[in-house]
Amino acid sequence: MKRRSHITFITMALFASILVFLQAFACSEQTDTLAVNPTRLEQRVEKLAGYGKTQDGGVFRVAFSENDIRSRQYILSLMKEAGLITHTDEAGNIIGRREGKDPSLPSIVFGSHTDTVPHGGKFDGAMGVLGAIECVQVLAENGVKTRHPLEVIVFTDEEGGLIGSKAIIGTLTSEALAVTSHSGKTVREGIEALGGNPDALNNVVRKKGDLKAFIEIHIEQGNILVSKGIDIGVVEGIVGINWWDVTIEGFSNHAGTTPMDRRQDALLAAAHLIIAVNKVVIGVPGRQVGTVGRVRAEPGAPNVIPGMVVMSLELRDLSSDKIDSLFQKIVKEAELVGKKTGTNISFTPIGATAFPSPTDPSIRKIIAESAEELGLSYLFMPSGAGHDAQNMAKIAPAGMIFVPSVGGVSHSPKEFTPVEDIANGANVLLRTILKIDRL
Amino acid sequence: MKRRSHITFITMALFASILVFLQAFACSEQTDTLAVNPTRLEQRVEKLAGYGKTQDGGVFRVAFSENDIRSRQYILSLMKEAGLITHTDEAGNIIGRREGKDPSLPSIVFGSHTDTVPHGGKFDGAMGVLGAIECVQVLAENGVKTRHPLEVIVFTDEEGGLIGSKAIIGTLTSEALAVTSHSGKTVREGIEALGGNPDALNNVVRKKGDLKAFIEIHIEQGNILVSKGIDIGVVEGIVGINWWDVTIEGFSNHAGTTPMDRRQDALLAAAHLIIAVNKVVIGVPGRQVGTVGRVRAEPGAPNVIPGMVVMSLELRDLSSDKIDSLFQKIVKEAELVGKKTGTNISFTPIGATAFPSPTDPSIRKIIAESAEELGLSYLFMPSGAGHDAQNMAKIAPAGMIFVPSVGGVSHSPKEFTPVEDIANGANVLLRTILKIDRL
Repeated sequence: MKRRSHITFITMALFASILVFLQAFACSEQTDTLAVNPTRLEQRVEKLAGYGKTQDGGVFRVAFSENDIRSRQYILSLMKEAGLITHTDEAGNIIGRREGKDPSLPSIVFGSHTDTVPHGGKFDGAMGVLGAIECVQVLAENGVKTRHPLEVIVFTDEEGGLIGSKAIIGTLTSEALAVTSHSGKTVREGIEALGGNPDALNNVVRKKGDLKAFIEIHIEQGNILVSKGIDIGVVEGIVGINWWDVTIEGFSNHAGTTPMDRRQDALLAAAHLIIAVNKVVIGVPGRQVGTVGRVRAEPGAPNVIPGMVVMSLELRDLSSDKIDSLFQKIVKEAELVGKKTGTNISFTPIGATAFPSPTDPSIRKIIAESAEELGLSYLFMPSGAGHDAQNMAKIAPAGMIFVPSVGGVSHSPKEFTPVEDIANGANVLLRTILKIDRL
Repeated sequence: MKRRSHITFITMALFASILVFLQAFACSEQTDTLAVNPTRLEQRVEKLAGYGKTQDGGVFRVAFSENDIRSRQYILSLMKEAGLITHTDEAGNIIGRREGKDPSLPSIVFGSHTDTVPHGGKFDGAMGVLGAIECVQVLAENGVKTRHPLEVIVFTDEEGGLIGSKAIIGTLTSEALAVTSHSGKTVREGIEALGGNPDALNNVVRKKGDLKAFIEIHIEQGNILVSKGIDIGVVEGIVGINWWDVTIEGFSNHAGTTPMDRRQDALLAAAHLIIAVNKVVIGVPGRQVGTVGRVRAEPGAPNVIPGMVVMSLELRDLSSDKIDSLFQKIVKEAELVGKKTGTNISFTPIGATAFPSPTDPSIRKIIAESAEELGLSYLFMPSGAGHDAQNMAKIAPAGMIFVPSVGGVSHSPKEFTPVEDIANGANVLLRTILKIDRL
């Protein structure tokens, strides 16, 4: 009895294993042939761009504006077409959910945003949302049901400071709610206009472990992929951003009556410092960037030696330690410049500082494998720009897929990504979701 | 008969010569002891500063303002006290005249202005006018009559572009009349408010030869005299001023996503150029100055690489040739900077350009001798700032006498010149006028 049942058990187990293997193989084969519909994607990009279209081919769809509110109805209709159960959460985020086979499993979440900067373009954010919906629609059309629930998310007011994803990770402050957005509404009023409830933001908070993964496709907003001829960027993380106000105090004086050797010219000192910032930043290996983008000389007249200059300093890198070390070098250079020019240079850190947010190594690997299987070239790279993914990375294994931006242009009506690249990104996302689902 | 009359003639001629010599000697002795009244001068400086006094001890008496108009009544009263016959000419200049012994001789003219920049000081302009009136008052009190007529002049709206002296030399254009001044009135309206007639400016024009000389005392507005411990500046001329708008075109891009080696940062290029301007200007011997006082980076956000910078360039020197040669060197440096930074740099000359105006060498000599006789130290120096004297130099032998400005401060409530220095300047002016009168 014992031996017989033993053999029977082995036979059954073998049989079951073969079945599981065949099923997995069949499933893999079945899903491996899935591909997004580039024509549909392209049509939807154009349709969405119609909400806030500008004469120069750009899009003016700032968060909470009429254009933003109307476009969300269009997004909801697409989500429904893809079989998603939709709702707008208390933070105004749109969420479209598709149940999986196993209700006990956490959701795989993917998405981006549809708001634009003032005078923005068609692709930033929009392609991430439309690519995400497309993936679900392809699964629905092919009757593929994942083990995990899937959620497509459209974050509220990304361009105004990652508002929707901040709410989800529980870091949206009352100060941020009081800020007046480009729409003219405060963020609080804007969230209400989207159907949210800023007084019940606790309901939208998700904790570590609540999500299986978060993935976002986005245009690169840089020129690295295009210039290297590469299809897909596998994002290693979103860089940390540190800002300072740099104040250079010299002595304002008459430009005609003050000899050259008796000047304390704050703008001349600023010039030395701007060059020093550049030298420090390019002086070490790596992909860190440093920028002086804003400068004000006072009193600012052609015939007066500037007595004071206030300028910005921004440093970005994937490593906080590197940002710190670059800053310390810049401070030392500033001391030398101050001595040389008879000026006093001080640095005031500004609030708008983001910490580096590395993506999840296993998800990076899956994205790279997916690209490779699709015959696409790929590159591991940092994201120099901020994204909702940097917030989501705090509560979930996160990944980002970049597609090329022609000329590296973004936040501009000239923003452009060919439909093939959008489709490539969406196909990589689709494959990535399915791989994560099988983990 | 013949011989006798011959001897008589020689005797008479000798006698006459001795008389003339004695008279001249007596006159010289008499006038050499004349000196201005420092207490009176100081009181008048304070009284005049009361018209437009600001809480910080400065003066806000822009041309054509109520303060300007009221202060002119005070000046007219002082002129009358000094025995001057006053009138306001069609350009609004106040002229106080004292006849000389010989009506056929041209006038010796001296004066300055009483208008201030917004938030200016007590001394710029004011001390030149009060010093000039003081000289005439001292002559009147001592019964000294000059051969030449004397004219004290208070020029209209010096700070707004040497308006009164431009009218006198016939270069005040209808465009200049249409400019809105700091008072809110156009120059035309302002001149009318002073009692002038902008449609009859021809009446005020003086031609070459009409004046014996023009002299102006002024605070130095620089720190050269104070720092060298010198009493009097003998002005060699008013420097030429050339202005350019410098436009640097780079490429505006995302400060996070654009690698350092792919930037065309217009502000980094501007920094290189600002340093190059400084190096070129200090790279040749002389007292030329060069200044970048105004700078604007676009779009001017901390997180955007500046795509364009517009900044001012000002060069000043007594020699137009030197200004030209410095500018050519700067243009060459700009080409190198453009190549190095991937930017395009262009220079647009701006209208506000003054040609160098040398003072008259013989008048410089007289001023220097006068200072020396008074036991005052003196220095030949250029005026880096513009003055009405630069216009008057076009129609008359002109001279300028500088007195120290503490700290080199001017166009500021902190402007200060001790009364001793003001009196020194006025005494040099008095002696200079008398020496010119004897020429």
